[in-house]
Amino acid sequence: KTSFNIAVLPGDGIGPEVVNESTKILNAIGEVFNYTFEFTYGLMGAEAIFKTGNPLPEETLQICKEADAVLFGAIGDPSFDHNPDAKVRPEQGLLKLRKELGLFANIRPLKTYASLIDKSPLKKEIIEGADIQIFRELVSGIYFGEKFTDEEAGYAYDICKYNRDEIAPIVHMAFQEAQKRRKKLTLIDKANVLDTSRLWRKVCKEIAQKYPDVELDFMFVDNAAMQLILNPKQFDVIVTENMFGDIISDEASVIGGSIGLLPSASIGNENALFEPIHGSYPQAKGKGIANPVASVLSTAMMLDYLGLVEAAEKLRHSVEYAIENKYVTMDLNAEQHYSTSEVGSFIADYI
Amino acid sequence: KTSFNIAVLPGDGIGPEVVNESTKILNAIGEVFNYTFEFTYGLMGAEAIFKTGNPLPEETLQICKEADAVLFGAIGDPSFDHNPDAKVRPEQGLLKLRKELGLFANIRPLKTYASLIDKSPLKKEIIEGADIQIFRELVSGIYFGEKFTDEEAGYAYDICKYNRDEIAPIVHMAFQEAQKRRKKLTLIDKANVLDTSRLWRKVCKEIAQKYPDVELDFMFVDNAAMQLILNPKQFDVIVTENMFGDIISDEASVIGGSIGLLPSASIGNENALFEPIHGSYPQAKGKGIANPVASVLSTAMMLDYLGLVEAAEKLRHSVEYAIENKYVTMDLNAEQHYSTSEVGSFIADYI
Ligand SMILES: CC(C)[C@H](C(=O)O)[C@@H](O)C(=O)O
Ligand SMILES: CC(C)[C@H](C(=O)O)[C@@H](O)C(=O)O
Repeated sequence: KTSFNIAVLPGDGIGPEVVNESTKILNAIGEVFNYTFEFTYGLMGAEAIFKTGNPLPEETLQICKEADAVLFGAIGDPSFDHNPDAKVRPEQGLLKLRKELGLFANIRPLKTYASLIDKSPLKKEIIEGADIQIFRELVSGIYFGEKFTDEEAGYAYDICKYNRDEIAPIVHMAFQEAQKRRKKLTLIDKANVLDTSRLWRKVCKEIAQKYPDVELDFMFVDNAAMQLILNPKQFDVIVTENMFGDIISDEASVIGGSIGLLPSASIGNENALFEPIHGSYPQAKGKGIANPVASVLSTAMMLDYLGLVEAAEKLRHSVEYAIENKYVTMDLNAEQHYSTSEVGSFIADYI
Repeated sequence: KTSFNIAVLPGDGIGPEVVNESTKILNAIGEVFNYTFEFTYGLMGAEAIFKTGNPLPEETLQICKEADAVLFGAIGDPSFDHNPDAKVRPEQGLLKLRKELGLFANIRPLKTYASLIDKSPLKKEIIEGADIQIFRELVSGIYFGEKFTDEEAGYAYDICKYNRDEIAPIVHMAFQEAQKRRKKLTLIDKANVLDTSRLWRKVCKEIAQKYPDVELDFMFVDNAAMQLILNPKQFDVIVTENMFGDIISDEASVIGGSIGLLPSASIGNENALFEPIHGSYPQAKGKGIANPVASVLSTAMMLDYLGLVEAAEKLRHSVEYAIENKYVTMDLNAEQHYSTSEVGSFIADYI
């Protein structure tokens, strides 16, 4: 297969700007490697609400279902964040899309770039050589459990719920990844308090018997939040439930020195979506200062997923080349910096 | 009042060792300031389970209810952590005690010690001068909502529930603390996903009108987990729900350079409990290497609570003196270090 149908959802804030660099670069890759990437655009998030009233229009969902892969920018808008009463919210679009496409595993690789190591708030000796892969469960837990607010009585609740079938697939995936790496898997949970965490622990222990070469250990989420900063090198592969994964993986982004660098892949049995870890960063919208690297590296993960391993390697190499040569945006070098599209074009040209 | 009845719950792991230094020091304070501290000991946690089958025996609860304040060590034992099926667990004792005493606000002050600043995994310029006060709601939320496991069907759930009356008191407390400090309050939540978080945001906004001199802002918990490391100085007072507070406050402990230094106070309308942030650290049990400072500084918070402000100041000053003069345990100085009880005695003698 040499022709691919990519659904592109630019989303909110800086989403459109960074995704634009990714499509530019995909075109360059298409030329060099003789692939055709067809882009079909869809609305999602605050943009979609403003234009259609719906954060995930039916048409967008169809586009995604039919695509070979989905490239997504970012979501979120401050006008909704500051209004706790809004019934329709941008994030509902992303959450619904994850659920509808069955994207149960969010994968976030974290590593440090030699040339950027001084950008991290952490000391060099703490992070140098850290290399962590986080597997976050993405379509269950408190994100998708029943929610309820009673305005009159003044209370609200959110239910965190898990069953074995929601836990097992991502745990298998994480074990398999650990087998390819340093053979250590850490489950992050709160099994001293939560029933759902105890179920995670149980399922992990059972599945561990199929992977005797991988060492499984357990860490409470409060301790993990501390250990990630004190000694990130102790981790190889991490697996965790949806909410803990949201918190832990954003926190862990400081290890790499900049959240503007970090990609993620959300994988299901039939579909996959690729997005930067960073949010919509509305303050930077339209200024041409957003770092496109996280989106571009998400695109590299997409190429891997599509089986275009050589192209993915080439792309990652080009990004490293740009970073080593300080062809970067403002967040990485305040003295001398380039715009979002200059960085994207530099990478595209290098390819 | 010059005579005080203190309930002492040494608990598990290193709990007994560190609490022992606190009572030693309270005796010294009693001599110098002419106060009498009467200690009544109670069992709690794994220790209590082994001896009575109950992590919080009725007798312990009574002792605490009748005391002027409770001094607590630590809780938790690996034999329970590794057994997801255990029905009786040490942590239940602490959770029940918090609930029964109505300790709705867990207060964790964080600051850096000049002489220890190099111990932090964070760069000096990031943490120097950071000074944060975290208010964590302690008796509601997912910790205390209904929990359920169906073994057969293979699922489990935990309910996160809040009502206005559970949110308002701690929010008022946090606003009042902010008024005494740099006048900034940050609510950490996940209002883009959770109904309970939207209720927190709403209640905070309403209460803010009573404190027009305090600037209130909101931060999503994933972003907060990152911002605490990237730029801790942006925070003054933080208020948050139970589970987020558990994660965020342990994470924030890295700012101070060592979790072995950090005290906490859990305050209710009629009772108060003082405990280190660190856990039971079972690997260190009985070795005389545990750092007693977190427990000793928790004792200083207790003295404040009892109105013995001068004694509290004296105690804090003594701790600082010990640290500045490197009279510390192994965790703070690998080359030259003292035992748990040597450090405690040094502080007691200095008083
Ligand atoms: C936008 C938000 C709903 C989302 C989440 O919490 O999952 C984001 O923080 C993420 O991590 O992808
Ligand atoms: C021991 C455990 C139940 C407890 C908690 O999660 O509240 C501890 O981590 C804490 O923060 O005091």
